[in-house]
Amino acid sequence: MDIALTSIGVVHSPFNDPAEASIQSSRSTAIGSVEVFPQFAVGLQDLEEFSHIFLLYLIECPQGYDLHVKPFLDDQEHGVFATRYPCHPNPIGLSVVHLLRMEGNRLDIEGVDMLDNTQLLDIKPCVPEFDSRENVKVGWYDRRAHR
Amino acid sequence: MDIALTSIGVVHSPFNDPAEASIQSSRSTAIGSVEVFPQFAVGLQDLEEFSHIFLLYLIECPQGYDLHVKPFLDDQEHGVFATRYPCHPNPIGLSVVHLLRMEGNRLDIEGVDMLDNTQLLDIKPCVPEFDSRENVKVGWYDRRAHR
Repeated sequence: MDIALTSIGVVHSPFNDPAEASIQSSRSTAIGSVEVFPQFAVGLQDLEEFSHIFLLYLIECPQGYDLHVKPFLDDQEHGVFATRYPCHPNPIGLSVVHLLRMEGNRLDIEGVDMLDNTQLLDIKPCVPEFDSRENVKVGWYDRRAHR
Repeated sequence: MDIALTSIGVVHSPFNDPAEASIQSSRSTAIGSVEVFPQFAVGLQDLEEFSHIFLLYLIECPQGYDLHVKPFLDDQEHGVFATRYPCHPNPIGLSVVHLLRMEGNRLDIEGVDMLDNTQLLDIKPCVPEFDSRENVKVGWYDRRAHR
């Protein structure tokens, strides 16, 4: 089944090369912005009251994907779905960023880990009651080769 | 820009009607399963070591979307991107579920809040270091009409 999505905006980031970007937003202090296309801007109402938001976005994977990958933080291969490696069969990026300010259709954000001109698919507010869990086991990540 | 994605599997859930499903996985104790299509199954290696996983999936929105919505837990309208309302311009659902067991290409999960036969787009392991934040402000959700 093919599923058609559309870009709702674009992320402006200081990173043009995957080698310079942080491997995760939680390890990034980089500042950037999200420009939501004008036809979607009224959907942002009240978002400025939230401190943290999920961004869902399209990751460019010109080489496609592998089902086994060696993630950046380990020396062992794992199934791609057991990693946060960018190129999954559907390369949808998921990052929690800090929302610094909203002005019209522009969101200033901290914790950028995506490349400049990344196509935005969705914004959702972070709500710890929905998204955080206790007693989480993280498998190979606890035994990873690199910190 | 149109973006083409493909289903990588299907979610089996006890819910056939949106009115019966939990509004969030964190409020659900429902048991279900994820059937990953065989051609993607090797990408699951080592996932069983993680206790919690993100599922990204397609939400069916035959009526399309509104940019202003009244979420289930409030009596006020908000911009759709400031809510977890299911039907966003790109209706990609995001749920954290508890991974009970993995057997071949089948994942038994707890915390199901999606409908039966939901098309799966991606699986990512939950890693609190990446996904959880302190001092999160949740705007209208703190003043919501319904608990």
